[in-house]
Amino acid sequence: MSKKNLAILLRARMRSSNPTKFSLSQFPKEIQSNTQENRSGDHIVDNSNEGIGNSSKFGTTGRVYDVVRETMHSATSASKTGVLDITLSDFQEGYFSLSLEDREKLLLELAKEYDVNREQVRELIKQYLGLEKSASDDKEVSSSVFYRVERNLRHSLRPTYEVLFERLNTHPGGLRFLSILRADLLSILTKENTPSLRTLDSFLKEKLGMWLSPATLELHQITWDDPASLLEKIVAYEAVHPISNLLDLKRRLGIGRRCFGYFHPSIPGEPLIFIEVALMETVAQTIQEVLWDNPPIPENQATCALFYSISSTQPGLAGINLGKFLIKRVITLVKKDMPHVSTFATLSPIPGFMQWLLSKLSSQSRFAEDERGTQSNSPSSTFSEKVLLPGEEQALMSLSDDSSPGSNGMEVLLNLLSAKDCDWATSARLLPVLEPILMRLCARYLLQEKKRGKALDSVANFHLQNGAMVERINWMADRSEKGIHQSGGIMVNYVYRLENIEDYAQSYFGSGKIHASPGIHSRL
Amino acid sequence: MSKKNLAILLRARMRSSNPTKFSLSQFPKEIQSNTQENRSGDHIVDNSNEGIGNSSKFGTTGRVYDVVRETMHSATSASKTGVLDITLSDFQEGYFSLSLEDREKLLLELAKEYDVNREQVRELIKQYLGLEKSASDDKEVSSSVFYRVERNLRHSLRPTYEVLFERLNTHPGGLRFLSILRADLLSILTKENTPSLRTLDSFLKEKLGMWLSPATLELHQITWDDPASLLEKIVAYEAVHPISNLLDLKRRLGIGRRCFGYFHPSIPGEPLIFIEVALMETVAQTIQEVLWDNPPIPENQATCALFYSISSTQPGLAGINLGKFLIKRVITLVKKDMPHVSTFATLSPIPGFMQWLLSKLSSQSRFAEDERGTQSNSPSSTFSEKVLLPGEEQALMSLSDDSSPGSNGMEVLLNLLSAKDCDWATSARLLPVLEPILMRLCARYLLQEKKRGKALDSVANFHLQNGAMVERINWMADRSEKGIHQSGGIMVNYVYRLENIEDYAQSYFGSGKIHASPGIHSRL
Repeated sequence: MSKKNLAILLRARMRSSNPTKFSLSQFPKEIQSNTQENRSGDHIVDNSNEGIGNSSKFGTTGRVYDVVRETMHSATSASKTGVLDITLSDFQEGYFSLSLEDREKLLLELAKEYDVNREQVRELIKQYLGLEKSASDDKEVSSSVFYRVERNLRHSLRPTYEVLFERLNTHPGGLRFLSILRADLLSILTKENTPSLRTLDSFLKEKLGMWLSPATLELHQITWDDPASLLEKIVAYEAVHPISNLLDLKRRLGIGRRCFGYFHPSIPGEPLIFIEVALMETVAQTIQEVLWDNPPIPENQATCALFYSISSTQPGLAGINLGKFLIKRVITLVKKDMPHVSTFATLSPIPGFMQWLLSKLSSQSRFAEDERGTQSNSPSSTFSEKVLLPGEEQALMSLSDDSSPGSNGMEVLLNLLSAKDCDWATSARLLPVLEPILMRLCARYLLQEKKRGKALDSVANFHLQNGAMVERINWMADRSEKGIHQSGGIMVNYVYRLENIEDYAQSYFGSGKIHASPGIHSRL
Repeated sequence: MSKKNLAILLRARMRSSNPTKFSLSQFPKEIQSNTQENRSGDHIVDNSNEGIGNSSKFGTTGRVYDVVRETMHSATSASKTGVLDITLSDFQEGYFSLSLEDREKLLLELAKEYDVNREQVRELIKQYLGLEKSASDDKEVSSSVFYRVERNLRHSLRPTYEVLFERLNTHPGGLRFLSILRADLLSILTKENTPSLRTLDSFLKEKLGMWLSPATLELHQITWDDPASLLEKIVAYEAVHPISNLLDLKRRLGIGRRCFGYFHPSIPGEPLIFIEVALMETVAQTIQEVLWDNPPIPENQATCALFYSISSTQPGLAGINLGKFLIKRVITLVKKDMPHVSTFATLSPIPGFMQWLLSKLSSQSRFAEDERGTQSNSPSSTFSEKVLLPGEEQALMSLSDDSSPGSNGMEVLLNLLSAKDCDWATSARLLPVLEPILMRLCARYLLQEKKRGKALDSVANFHLQNGAMVERINWMADRSEKGIHQSGGIMVNYVYRLENIEDYAQSYFGSGKIHASPGIHSRL
């Protein structure tokens, strides 16, 4: 593979001309809470209109739609002959040729018309309850009948579309197709969140999670020797720290670096998720050290494996935690290869920090305003809280001027942070004042802000549930626009200590306990 | 790998000293109707007491049992922390250390105590029926609740042991463990066929079938360059035409031969099923041509790919059809590699022929006896039928002598065929008389004898449902003791014609139609 060829490929991927291929889109990003069902909706980027066919070339939309619907019906209702291959292929192709509206119409129809057969369920419930009552004499025989009815009832509660999903799963390209179909579903759900569609989605998600169990996934180290068709996907899907050029890619696969992907046999040549690792002497504090600094150290001097990027590639697999097993397996592998590596840490973004902070400042400064308005020194609103310490309040008020006005510290901070172009991040005057404040608030956000007993930050939640601890937060660790915008430039090191992984994961799951270093605690 | 090393390995496998490893057993045989649930029990060889641990070394059986039961309980009932690794490993190891009686006791307990939570089911049925009635106004909201209750009801109908199975499936070595556990279950079921155990088994079978969907399996060509640890498994599991020595194995992997296996990522180094292929000029009529004859023809002269052996390796996967997809993929692969190969055929045993024939002869000669006893020329019993043609009757009676007495042709044939040592098969006097009779009856058995609308012969059923046709039967094609004993030395060629596979499979599924060549039909 010459560099020129790779470059052509990389350019080619921008075109997305083939309507039957799901576009390589801007979706991927560090795993964002893919494990909690309640959050999987947060990160849906509506990019599924990519790859939508131009149905006009097939004649009227209506006719194409009818044909695809008919194929869907055959694919679902034909008897289990195992010879549906052509029908399933036709359905896949037909689906890709549909416009997004038609896909939406089709999926709505699938959700409603191919749902549970409730008449059958009622009938079997009747039988079931009948048998439960009469279970007395002739116990073994009636018990045999009972088990059969129970199984039938269980099966009858499965929606009809399960058949379609299962058939597609065993069909070449079907698993990938289902992941695209789910990406469409998620995109449709952002506009039309009906119970039947939601049910279809959560059912498909459950199925996909089962089919993509770690037992079926293979770990592969991605190197510069891999095909360009695979490498271009790494470039396309890496969105935590975008790959800027060929040299950058080559470096990330070269000495002192590792890249591992999880592959599924039926989605060949494309990792479902991949992780980038830097072998270092110490745990890096800034992403610059990892990506742009001097040549890497000799590998035999490394004592730390730093996970600096995890990217999932399939928007349709949102909410299915593939990363957890990936990290565990990579740790085992690196440990075996390089016994001298004893620290496994991450350098992670804190994607929800600024959003949380700005909304907290906005609501609290309003409360503060209201309280002043009522001239009351009496108990403040139940929702109001002290965001800033007295010293911070003073320091911020001293910064108040025309460009960042404010009647209290929170307002000043809010105005500074939400000013366009994030000027604060390059201001020699502001940074020294903001650093201790933002670092303290960031520690609070990571260790204390929770949602349903779990860390509010999605990446924190991901690593904590995998058994990591919060080790350290690093000021101005990611000065990229995205880094400043999302997390005030702060990055965090989570550390995986082999001897504690299981315990930490268990106590996090059980009681929501977040393990953190004394250093972080002292910032609170 | 030197031959000496391989020989040592091959000997080592006979010892089966490691109680945690399932022994390489004598179970495998050509896929025998693994696709029809009602037959899966036919071929269970009770070999699962291999690999049973000697529990005495752990102290009293009772104490070990209690520990393993306790681990099973923890593994099943612990919350979904994902950190059960140690518990699951302990359970696997503990299970292996149990005696067969203790395994049986444990599995019975699993079947009964970890079954469906019926109290919860009743409660949810009540809610479900209540919602169905009140589904009137506020439609979308109630529908959302309804979907939730329906899902809960569906989930509640799952037995508790599903959790254990699913956790084991995602655990290293778990899938293999589950297949061994199911082998034990099948062996226990032959003695103690209770509804709860049967239910446990069919549930596990369903799960295994899902986890081993073709989407998760990988096709790998097995060659002489593969590790000895893999090759020894081929030797161990090949039971259609046992591999007699190293030269035999090397020949089966060498020029003019192919061997393909289906592998699952979580059972590495061991095919779940493998198929042996011979590249030939014409469709072989005897297994001798394939296994022992002159050097193979140059591969570029081959026009036929002959599937001469399919062996499944995991007794615990009985009833799960892995072979079908294997054959399809191998045909595609060979076709692509060698476009000059245009015929895809098998040379298959007819494992049920003699058993069917002997039982038919035995019952019918009894009927004939009864009829003669009543001196009646009137309508014969509804169950009696003409097994032999008049000419055959005469020919057989002419053979009747002291060594094979009989008052009618059927009795003579029965006595000849059931004489010990199968002397008939080497008798120059008997063979010419028996050939046309056995060949006609064999054609009848293959094309006309059915069970629930499908071919009675399990191998025939396997190939017919995959879309093959019955091409030709071959006299004295397998003179091995097993060949004579099972199928009177006859073998059959099934042919896969690419252009007909789907049609044939569909019509066989739909109406039980068996496609066969004119040559076979003319024998009837």
